[in-house]
Amino acid sequence: MARVLYDLYGRDEQLRFSPYCWRVRMALAHKGLDVEVKPWRFQQKDAIAFANTDKVPVLCDGDQVVADSFAIMRYLDDAYPETPAVLGSGVSYQRALLFCHFVDRQISPALFRIVALDLLAAIHPDDRDYFRATREARFGCTLEEFHSPEQGQALLYKALAPVREVLRTSPFLDGETPSGADYLLFGSVMWANIVSRQAPVIEEPLVGDWFKRLCAAHNGLGDQALTVRDLGDEQSA
Amino acid sequence: MARVLYDLYGRDEQLRFSPYCWRVRMALAHKGLDVEVKPWRFQQKDAIAFANTDKVPVLCDGDQVVADSFAIMRYLDDAYPETPAVLGSGVSYQRALLFCHFVDRQISPALFRIVALDLLAAIHPDDRDYFRATREARFGCTLEEFHSPEQGQALLYKALAPVREVLRTSPFLDGETPSGADYLLFGSVMWANIVSRQAPVIEEPLVGDWFKRLCAAHNGLGDQALTVRDLGDEQSA
Repeated sequence: MARVLYDLYGRDEQLRFSPYCWRVRMALAHKGLDVEVKPWRFQQKDAIAFANTDKVPVLCDGDQVVADSFAIMRYLDDAYPETPAVLGSGVSYQRALLFCHFVDRQISPALFRIVALDLLAAIHPDDRDYFRATREARFGCTLEEFHSPEQGQALLYKALAPVREVLRTSPFLDGETPSGADYLLFGSVMWANIVSRQAPVIEEPLVGDWFKRLCAAHNGLGDQALTVRDLGDEQSA
Repeated sequence: MARVLYDLYGRDEQLRFSPYCWRVRMALAHKGLDVEVKPWRFQQKDAIAFANTDKVPVLCDGDQVVADSFAIMRYLDDAYPETPAVLGSGVSYQRALLFCHFVDRQISPALFRIVALDLLAAIHPDDRDYFRATREARFGCTLEEFHSPEQGQALLYKALAPVREVLRTSPFLDGETPSGADYLLFGSVMWANIVSRQAPVIEEPLVGDWFKRLCAAHNGLGDQALTVRDLGDEQSA
């Protein structure tokens, strides 16, 4: 059965930094499910209109079409009950949902401030005007004004306090092995890590080591990802 | 089998505002376990020295002695596996632990800024010097300087964003019925609610209604609690 994931790409077709697509790629790997990844760009709205969305990830699984990373993770748990759960059900699911909102509201905005201009440079040249216009409208300021690595690091450090506490007692957020909560946070950290011209984005060892463990998980899926640091200067690319 | 919970009291022996004791009282009610609640004050360290702690809650369950609210919730799940779980095990437990740290690091400090001086007034007169000295050392400023309801409300509103998102889709954080995540947050809100001279502490309807539902749960355990608003002025008390 054909399984296809639409995944955002940037200035290089192999540069894949979408935090939401990384959540899904880790969830698929967690379950041992193969997928064909189709590169997609911000303005190729027509290509995913069939899924009634204008954003990736979009997963096509046989005749099932699912958009939104959290909905895809939930779908995978439902459709493949014989595979290890990523979100789980009942209170496990509810608590993962809460953590998802925490990551989206606190962690990702802090990371965005750290890498805003690096992110702009990582985006496909044809998408940069679109990206700038949509994000500046959202933030109410220019990307140059929003870009504030020191402030972002301070916000990130504060927001990560509960994460650090858990990582003092277990190697992953979800315990001895990684699972849904880990992938939810990992997606955002991976996003910033791939586009950052000055990695590592995570400066502290507890969370930094967790990130390395996750990059190595699932046969090094994260370790194998292309980053902007692997690419030459844009002029010579 | 005798089950005893040491619980903090304030200027009235029936005024019980400890957030950590409320977590435990809700967990016990969730499991249908009776308990004898023993009133305790901040400086009665000798009375709980047997538990190798100087803080409540302390639960004595037959010959088992457990201190720390999260440890007590975990103990209750382990000791009474036939009762409904509060934290659960595996990823449920891990995600509850993460949320516990989130509440302790973000929600409780915001609430403290809202009610700092109300809290001082709610404490037993003989404990106020102790309370002021220990908290001012922790905060690095006077309680009067720390007390800042407007700033606290702004911090609280921001910190509660993930909670609001979950409550848009389910009546309780843990789903259709309350459980561990609900009690972890409830303890802190109840603490502020009991000592606040100007309730309600939660000004927004989504979280405010959740709080009311929890106060009504378990035969109205929360609704029956004495608050400072039920007491007269201290002079006439």
